[in-house]
Amino acid sequence: MTDYLIIGADAAGLSAAVQIKREDPDACLKVINKGSIISYAACGIPYVISGDVESIEKLIHFTPETIEKKRGILVEVQKQAIRLFPEEKSVEVKNLKTEETYREKYDKLLIATGAVPNKLPFIDYEEEGIFNLNDLEDLKEILRYIKNHQPKRAAIIGAGNIGLELLEGLNSTGIEVHVFEMFPEPAMVWPPLIREAVKRKIKEKGVRFSGEASVKEVRKTGKGFALSTKKGSHEFDMVFSVVGTKPATDFCKDKIRTLDNGALVIDRKGRTSEEDIYSAGDCASIYHKILDRNVYFPLGSTANRMGRIAGLNMAGKDIYFPGIVGTQIFKFFELSLAKTGLSLKEAEKEGIRAGISSAKRLNKAGYYPDAKKSEVNIIYDRSSGKIWGASAVSQGNAAQFIDPAAVAVFAGLNVKELGWFDAAYTPPFAPVWNAWVSASLKHKVD
Amino acid sequence: MTDYLIIGADAAGLSAAVQIKREDPDACLKVINKGSIISYAACGIPYVISGDVESIEKLIHFTPETIEKKRGILVEVQKQAIRLFPEEKSVEVKNLKTEETYREKYDKLLIATGAVPNKLPFIDYEEEGIFNLNDLEDLKEILRYIKNHQPKRAAIIGAGNIGLELLEGLNSTGIEVHVFEMFPEPAMVWPPLIREAVKRKIKEKGVRFSGEASVKEVRKTGKGFALSTKKGSHEFDMVFSVVGTKPATDFCKDKIRTLDNGALVIDRKGRTSEEDIYSAGDCASIYHKILDRNVYFPLGSTANRMGRIAGLNMAGKDIYFPGIVGTQIFKFFELSLAKTGLSLKEAEKEGIRAGISSAKRLNKAGYYPDAKKSEVNIIYDRSSGKIWGASAVSQGNAAQFIDPAAVAVFAGLNVKELGWFDAAYTPPFAPVWNAWVSASLKHKVD
Repeated sequence: MTDYLIIGADAAGLSAAVQIKREDPDACLKVINKGSIISYAACGIPYVISGDVESIEKLIHFTPETIEKKRGILVEVQKQAIRLFPEEKSVEVKNLKTEETYREKYDKLLIATGAVPNKLPFIDYEEEGIFNLNDLEDLKEILRYIKNHQPKRAAIIGAGNIGLELLEGLNSTGIEVHVFEMFPEPAMVWPPLIREAVKRKIKEKGVRFSGEASVKEVRKTGKGFALSTKKGSHEFDMVFSVVGTKPATDFCKDKIRTLDNGALVIDRKGRTSEEDIYSAGDCASIYHKILDRNVYFPLGSTANRMGRIAGLNMAGKDIYFPGIVGTQIFKFFELSLAKTGLSLKEAEKEGIRAGISSAKRLNKAGYYPDAKKSEVNIIYDRSSGKIWGASAVSQGNAAQFIDPAAVAVFAGLNVKELGWFDAAYTPPFAPVWNAWVSASLKHKVD
Repeated sequence: MTDYLIIGADAAGLSAAVQIKREDPDACLKVINKGSIISYAACGIPYVISGDVESIEKLIHFTPETIEKKRGILVEVQKQAIRLFPEEKSVEVKNLKTEETYREKYDKLLIATGAVPNKLPFIDYEEEGIFNLNDLEDLKEILRYIKNHQPKRAAIIGAGNIGLELLEGLNSTGIEVHVFEMFPEPAMVWPPLIREAVKRKIKEKGVRFSGEASVKEVRKTGKGFALSTKKGSHEFDMVFSVVGTKPATDFCKDKIRTLDNGALVIDRKGRTSEEDIYSAGDCASIYHKILDRNVYFPLGSTANRMGRIAGLNMAGKDIYFPGIVGTQIFKFFELSLAKTGLSLKEAEKEGIRAGISSAKRLNKAGYYPDAKKSEVNIIYDRSSGKIWGASAVSQGNAAQFIDPAAVAVFAGLNVKELGWFDAAYTPPFAPVWNAWVSASLKHKVD
């Protein structure tokens, strides 16, 4: 009988566990987890802060008790993997309640430890009022702090996706937000269409944004915190540090092949470089179909998919992940912003002679009530017309336009054909020419 | 200089006219139109009846005056083509104002006469209170009749798409509706998933539906109309006959190759069997990429696309329509219902060993407010896994799920890959596993 060990009880780990249990009901399967809360929707954190989602509990799918009861999966919490011994097929584990360490043996191991937030060296993250937004424990702290201290001014260090979602969440509660970003603009990893929309929305909402503003110091003052950049100092009641994440692989990255950032390299079955060790989720790389190589692209949707595949393969199946195309979407106030495939800049970096075409359209017939504006950019090969990517901004749901474009990118379709595509049309739900079809139609191929 | 003549000034005809004018600004271009209202959104008619769209004028994009002023396109209204002489390159035209007939010569002709409603032989469509729902003139009559007579009970003969949209429109105004359908069920051309949802919704709304109820007679009574089927007679204040449409090609179908129903057969450039005669829109066939043959599939979105292509080719371009996959969507009360590609039954009819898999999912994260239910069926080849079609019912927007599936059908992708597809995910706009991806994942390929 195979001993399965899974480190990490969130999206990837539990997706794998469920599949192993399904394929091999009598398997000896154990899941260990560093924190005491498992199986939660980290992506929902900003919406609990804003109050759109009414309680933390809504974000928790399973507790250790319910997953054991409903799925027969044993999860031990407050157990941290601290060292890996592939040659002995064991993991050194620390019981965080007792501080004891012990060895856990495995026949097949899944590392699904996720990612942890990067930390700035000059910040004391233990200080009350300074937050790193790692997990639901942090969220509890944030809610408690807001309730007890009624903060008026918050600083967010970092204007990436998490910083922006947090910005919206805090702004919705009436807290005055000031964002500090080391790069000149917010949402720097996103293409210009989306960056510009974010900038306009930040302005419209009266949120202060400081670009090229590396934070040098965060100091406790009598009433709150003094945050300093080279341009000056500001006072805040609370400070959020959201400057990216890194794979939680410190305990094993000397034993397994990784990308430069420490993400475990996996193949399309979820296998690492070491025998019988699999990985999935934010601690691992993922195969990018368009780039045809492993990249670091940590997303909840990918963690679920790759976790499931790893679990199936650990249990003896033979399933290959076809690869991501890199579809991403986020909400920012009244907008949804999305991307798939390559941006113009990314395509050019790959040596593609890329073109871009753009269209603005409503998301339903213009005469139908409540039609919302959408704008889509399509990236394509200027010689062949092959589609490489798309980005979309919508006052409605950008997924309506980015998902079909994503499938087109996956399939390597041609904008010459896509410009005539018969997407769904009916006045209350979609216009005759929607933005992604129109943008494809406006291609200029040599 | 080329003399272009276009018969019909709606979606197909005007899409062509705009392209011809763009490609050949000095072209001698004339558009004639039977009715006096041009360039209107027929698909919007039910929403004016319901009051969702506030006025008829909202549905009119151009008047003859505005299209001449803004686009330099001359449209002569109340001119009906009554005979075609391909050998002489001329059309006999009747001026409906003066009853005079004359010949109109052309170098290149586009027939874009659309479709007309089928009529039941025992109905006197001239009677006030009986409607055929052909164009905006009919809509004006309907609104006037409702205003003046305050009808309480309406009969709708025919439970296809137009009948159902009309049902919703009338029901929203408080008029009691009874639908009569010769087939046992409503929405008979749609797959079971959609038919069942329509049936449940009809019941839920308290609308009376009579299946297998061929209407035998509609007779004027003192107060209204007596409508009889073999099962009995019913009294109504107004009667709608919406039993399908047929191509408006009576004036030319003896001179041009047609499908059995009279639709002009066109190639992928919009050319008919006769030299220099093009056609597009509801009077013509359309190339179906999946079936690899010409079909009759009259939709506004197709008319716009094929009209545009015909116009470009008439003006000397060389553009081929890649074909439809047969994407369709309609609104029915709180639901949107959509289909693309082939249904299980249609696939089997084509000799495909087809399988079907199904998934019910919310349209956003379950913990996010206002998440709506969606259900998607995926049709695929049980041997190869190739996707052939999909259908979707959603309390949100089914286009979000049917459009990506439509692109997958267009590309001939495989459900084995699509089940892992990285569709957009963020709690407020899409779930981790959306219904079309989940349905693909649940395939059973031999």
